[in-house]
Amino acid sequence: MKPIYQIGFYILLLFGSLGCKQKDSTSTSTVDTNPVSNQKVERVEPPNWWIGFHNTHLQLLVKEPNIGEATVKIIYPGVTIKKVHSAHSPNYLFLDLHIAPETEAGVFDIVFTYPSGTEKKHTYELKARLKKPEDYVGFDSSDAVYLITPDRFANAETSNDVVAGLKEATIDRSKDYARHGGDIAGIIAHLDYISDMGFTAIWPSPLLTNDMPQWSYHGYAMTDFYEVDPRFGSLEDYKRLADETRKKGIKLIMDQVANHCGLEHWWMKDLPFKNWVNYQKDFENKEPTTFSNHRRTANQDSYASVADKEGMANGWFVSSMPDLNQRNPFMGNYLVQNSIWWIETLGLGGIRQDTYPYPDKQFMSEWAGAIMEEYPNFSIVGEEWSYNPLLIGYWQEGANNRDGYDSNLTSTMDFAMQQAVADALKEPENWNTGLVKIYEGLANDFYYASPKDIMVFPDNHDMDRVFTRLNEDVPNTKMALATFLTLPRIPQIYYGTEVLMENTDKPGDHGLIRTDFPGGWEEDEVNAFTGQGLSVAQKDMQRFLKKFLNYRKDSRAIHDGKTVHFGPFMGTYFLFRIMDDETVVLILNKNETPITIDLKRYAEIGLAGKKLKNIVTNETIYWGDDIQLAEKGPLVLTTKFQ
Amino acid sequence: MKPIYQIGFYILLLFGSLGCKQKDSTSTSTVDTNPVSNQKVERVEPPNWWIGFHNTHLQLLVKEPNIGEATVKIIYPGVTIKKVHSAHSPNYLFLDLHIAPETEAGVFDIVFTYPSGTEKKHTYELKARLKKPEDYVGFDSSDAVYLITPDRFANAETSNDVVAGLKEATIDRSKDYARHGGDIAGIIAHLDYISDMGFTAIWPSPLLTNDMPQWSYHGYAMTDFYEVDPRFGSLEDYKRLADETRKKGIKLIMDQVANHCGLEHWWMKDLPFKNWVNYQKDFENKEPTTFSNHRRTANQDSYASVADKEGMANGWFVSSMPDLNQRNPFMGNYLVQNSIWWIETLGLGGIRQDTYPYPDKQFMSEWAGAIMEEYPNFSIVGEEWSYNPLLIGYWQEGANNRDGYDSNLTSTMDFAMQQAVADALKEPENWNTGLVKIYEGLANDFYYASPKDIMVFPDNHDMDRVFTRLNEDVPNTKMALATFLTLPRIPQIYYGTEVLMENTDKPGDHGLIRTDFPGGWEEDEVNAFTGQGLSVAQKDMQRFLKKFLNYRKDSRAIHDGKTVHFGPFMGTYFLFRIMDDETVVLILNKNETPITIDLKRYAEIGLAGKKLKNIVTNETIYWGDDIQLAEKGPLVLTTKFQ
Repeated sequence: MKPIYQIGFYILLLFGSLGCKQKDSTSTSTVDTNPVSNQKVERVEPPNWWIGFHNTHLQLLVKEPNIGEATVKIIYPGVTIKKVHSAHSPNYLFLDLHIAPETEAGVFDIVFTYPSGTEKKHTYELKARLKKPEDYVGFDSSDAVYLITPDRFANAETSNDVVAGLKEATIDRSKDYARHGGDIAGIIAHLDYISDMGFTAIWPSPLLTNDMPQWSYHGYAMTDFYEVDPRFGSLEDYKRLADETRKKGIKLIMDQVANHCGLEHWWMKDLPFKNWVNYQKDFENKEPTTFSNHRRTANQDSYASVADKEGMANGWFVSSMPDLNQRNPFMGNYLVQNSIWWIETLGLGGIRQDTYPYPDKQFMSEWAGAIMEEYPNFSIVGEEWSYNPLLIGYWQEGANNRDGYDSNLTSTMDFAMQQAVADALKEPENWNTGLVKIYEGLANDFYYASPKDIMVFPDNHDMDRVFTRLNEDVPNTKMALATFLTLPRIPQIYYGTEVLMENTDKPGDHGLIRTDFPGGWEEDEVNAFTGQGLSVAQKDMQRFLKKFLNYRKDSRAIHDGKTVHFGPFMGTYFLFRIMDDETVVLILNKNETPITIDLKRYAEIGLAGKKLKNIVTNETIYWGDDIQLAEKGPLVLTTKFQ
Repeated sequence: MKPIYQIGFYILLLFGSLGCKQKDSTSTSTVDTNPVSNQKVERVEPPNWWIGFHNTHLQLLVKEPNIGEATVKIIYPGVTIKKVHSAHSPNYLFLDLHIAPETEAGVFDIVFTYPSGTEKKHTYELKARLKKPEDYVGFDSSDAVYLITPDRFANAETSNDVVAGLKEATIDRSKDYARHGGDIAGIIAHLDYISDMGFTAIWPSPLLTNDMPQWSYHGYAMTDFYEVDPRFGSLEDYKRLADETRKKGIKLIMDQVANHCGLEHWWMKDLPFKNWVNYQKDFENKEPTTFSNHRRTANQDSYASVADKEGMANGWFVSSMPDLNQRNPFMGNYLVQNSIWWIETLGLGGIRQDTYPYPDKQFMSEWAGAIMEEYPNFSIVGEEWSYNPLLIGYWQEGANNRDGYDSNLTSTMDFAMQQAVADALKEPENWNTGLVKIYEGLANDFYYASPKDIMVFPDNHDMDRVFTRLNEDVPNTKMALATFLTLPRIPQIYYGTEVLMENTDKPGDHGLIRTDFPGGWEEDEVNAFTGQGLSVAQKDMQRFLKKFLNYRKDSRAIHDGKTVHFGPFMGTYFLFRIMDDETVVLILNKNETPITIDLKRYAEIGLAGKKLKNIVTNETIYWGDDIQLAEKGPLVLTTKFQ
C-alpha cells in the first residue's frame, strides 16, 4: 500500500488554490457562555462520527441558508476546530475537526453564530467503535458472493412499494425498467435460503436513495449518499440486514459509487463549489453536452492525449448522472468519509466500487488507501469492464506498474476470464478455439499481483444471463459455473443463476436481465425458495450449485491451494487445486458421446490408485489407468471425503 | 541484464551430473618434443576463435573416429587446456580452453595422441578482433528492416543453382516449395536498390546449409551451423555481403535457430551425447512420435503442468527437425559460441532468433546474456508468434516479470500490433471495432519495458502478404504501412511489399507467400528494381514507401520522439510523434468520401498556425481551424522541411 490520504493535510495543501475565503479558526473552541437557540441546521454530514480512527481528522459539510457568514464553536474535550472553510455558495461551511486520540465517545453541540447574533446549534455524536479495526474482514477466495438486484429479488414489505413524495412513485412488474417492489426486508427474509445454498457473502446493488423520475430501480443514480431509499426500507432495515448476515456468517458487501450522483441529488440545486461536479456549466444549461469519451485505456496509456484523459475522467457517464469532481478536496473528503461511515455503521465485509476507471484515478487510490489504513483486513473490488488482462491487473494492489500507480484495491473484476469461459464452451474445439481459451486465459495469471483475490463471475447485472449467453445449454452452463467455482478467484454468482434465469428473448436488455426472482412476490406461482413449480432442469441446477457451493465453503484446496492444469485434450480440460491432503479435480468434457481418457498424462498430480468422491453426486471413483467420461458436462472430484 | 552465461564455470558445475569420463588435464599443456604427424582431424568447431573476449573460456568440439581415447596437447602462450571431456560417443572430445587476456593472435597446433602412439594435429587460429565490442551496433528504432527470403529474391549467380552432392539438387520456379535459385550474390547485386528505397537493415532468412531432401529453400532446417549453403554461395560471399552492407550503412541481421536442426544434420548419424537432442530414442526409431505440444503459454503460466512445460521445451517442432537439448551444457556452449562466431566473422548488426519460446527458456536468457556481454550495443529479436501483449512483453529485457525471468533480449515481435492494424482497417468503424484497435493496442505499450525496441511488421515470411490480408485494398495497405513506419517501434517490411506482392490465390501457402521478386531473374519480364513492367499501382506504392522510408531515415521524432494520440473520431485516427522542432503527424482516414475534421481537439500539440509538409507529395499545408481529408488513406505531415 502506498502513502495514503491524509484528509487534513490534503486540505491544508490544496485549499489555497480554490480561492475561497478562509476563516480564522483560532477563536472557535474557546468557552462561550451565551445561551444557544434551539434552531437546527438543515444538514451536517457525515451525520455522526466515531472515536478511535487512525486518521484523527474529520471534515463536516454543513448546509444551511447563509451559513457561510457564521462563526462556529464546539466545546468538547479532545475536539478542536482546526479550520472553517466557506464555499462558493453562501449556504455551506466545511469544518475541519481534529479528534484527539484520547477523546471519549459522546455528544456535543456545534454552535453557529451569524453576524446578526442569531445562533443555531447542531448536536453531533462521536460514537465508540463496536469492533476492532482488524475485525472488519473483507471477502476473499474463501467466499462465494451472491449478487442481488434488490428491487427484483424479493418483496417482503409491500407498504414501501410506493412512497409518496418520491419522483418515481409507482411499481409495475410488467415493465422491465419500472420498479418491481423488492426490498431489504425481502433479502433478510431469504438469508436462510442464501446461506443454505452455500453463499458466504452478498452484494446487493445500491440501496441508497435514487429519487429520480425513472429507472430508479437500479440504484446507481444516488440522490443522497447518507439515506437508504425508503422504497427499499430504512437505515434500521439496512442495519438489521447487516446484523442478520453477520449472524449467519455471511459478509455484506456494499455497492458504492464515487464517480457520479443522480441529476436529482439534493446538492445539484445549490452546489457548494463551482467545481463540485465536472462540466457544471453544461448542467446549468440543463443540457450536459460533455459526456465521457469512455476511452478507458487513457488511464494507463502513456501516449493518451490530455484531451482523452480529461474526457475520460471529467465527462459525464450519462446525462442523468453528473460527474463528481474528486479533485476538489472537499468532495474527496466527502467521498472517503461517506465510505468509512457506511463501513462503520454496518460493519461491512467489503465494498464494490462502481465504474472504477471513470473517477480521477489518483483520488481513487487515495480513497482505497484511506479505507485500507483504517480496516487492514477489508476488501474492495473495483469494476472496470475490460477484457484486457493488462488493465485488470493494473488496478490491483501490488501491480508492478511502470508508472508507479498502486490502486490500493484488493480486488478487480475478471471480465477477461468471464469471456474466456463463455468462448471456451461455445467455440468448437480446435488448436486455438474452445477449451484452450480457459487454458490460455488462466495462464495470464502470471501477470496479476494476486489472482486469487480477483473476482470472477459467469455474468452480472449488466450482462446477458449466462444461461442465455450459452444458448440455454445446461451442461455448458454447469461447466461454466464449475469452472468459476474452482478457479483461484473470488466467484460471484448473480441471483437466479441457480434456477437458470435467462433473458433470451431480449439479449442485452438490462431490465430483463434483472428479472424478478421467482417466489420473491407473494403472488408468484413458481417459488425458487421452496422449489414449488420449478422445472426438473431448474431443480437440478439449484442442487448442483448448492452441493458445489457447500463443498467449496470448507475447501482449503479451492480457497488457497496450488493450481495445476493441462492443455485441452480430446475435448476435455483437467484442472487441479491442491492443498495438503485435499486435491480437487475439475474435468470439463465437451464430448457429446462417451470418451475414455488415459490418465498417464496427469501422473505428476500423484492421484494414481486413490479413491475420489464426486462432490455433487457423492459417488466414489478410483483414479486408475483411465477415466470414462459418459456425458458432456463438468466432473468435480475430491480426495476429501468429509 | 541478469548475471550471464559463464561457459567454463557452467561446465564445471554441470559436468559431474552427465556421468561422463573426465580426463586429467593437468599434463596437457606441458612441452612435448615428439614429432607430430600431419594427419588432420575430421572437425573442430568453432573453426577458429578470437582473442580479446570478455569471456576467456572456449570449448572446442572435436570429431574424429575414436578421438575419445586420445590425450591432447596445446603449446601456445596464454592458452591452457583446463579440461578434456569425452562424450558418450567415442568419436568426440570437448576441450575447455582458457585464453588468458594477454594472449596474442596467432595459430597453434592441437595435438591428439592415441593410446597406440598415433598422433594427429589440428591447426587452430586465434584471430585479432577487427572492431571494438561497442562498435557492433544492433538495429533499433532508427532502422527500417527489409526481410528477404534469399531463394526468392534474386538469382545473380546461376552456377550455384544446382550443387551436385546435395540432397535437393534441382531448381523449379514453377513449384512453390522447390528451390528457385536466389542467392547471396543476388542480394549484393541489389543493395543499391534496397538502400535507395530507404531501408537501413536487411534480415535474410537463414543462409546456412540445409542439406535436406525437400523444402530446403526456407533455410530453417540447418544441417551445418558453420557452413554457408553452397546454393546460396560461400562464406566469402556472406562476408562480401557483410562488407557491402556495411559500406552502405545497412545493418546485416542474421537469422539463427537454437531450437532445432535439420534431420540430416551431420551429427545426427553419431550424436556426441545421449541427450544431445530431445527424444533421441524416437529419432533412432526413425519415427519421432513426441512433437512439441506448442503450448507456448507454458513458459509463463504459473499453473502449467510439468507435462506441458516439457512437451513445449522438449518436443520436436516438426518431424524433420530434431529438437536440440540446450540443457546439455556442451550443446549450450556450442550454440552460444556459434552465435558469437557469426557476429564476429560477419560484423553483424543483429540476430533474429527463430521459434524463440521453444528452446529451454533459461538457456535462451543465458545465450542472449552471453552475447550482450560481449557486444553491449548489439540487438537480438526473438520470434514468438503470440497475439498476447503479456507474452510479447515478458520476453523483453527489463520486463517486470514476477517470476524474475529476464530474457536479455533487446527486442521481441509485435504480432499483437500486426493484427490490431489489420483489424483496424478491415473492420467497420464502431465503438469497439475499427481504428480503436490501433488506439487501444498502442495503449498496451504502458506494459512494455521498451516499446520502441519492439519489432513490428505488416507481415512476414509465415503470414499472408499484407496486400492479400487487406483484400488488395491499396489505401488500406498504405495506411497499414504508414502506421508501422510511424509507431514507436522497429519496422520490418517483407521484400516485395513495395510492389504489392500478394498470395491471394492461395491464402496461407508459405511457398507462394515467398514469391519470387520480379526482376530477380534474368528472364523476368517485370523488373521491380528498374520499374520495367510494373503497374501504376505498384509504382505508386513503391514511390510511397521510398519517400516515407527516406524521410524516416533522419526523423528523430519517429526514432525517439514522444508519442501522443487521440481516440478515433469520425473514421479518422491522429497520432503525433514529437522531438524538439520536429512533429510528425499521422492521420488515417477510412472515409470513402471527403471529410473535414475540426482541429480544436488536437490543440495541445501546438501546431496551430504552423506550416507542415506532406512527406510523400511535398505539398505544404497550414494547420488551421480544420483539415480537409479528400480521400481514404494515410496523410503524413511533418513540421520539418528538409
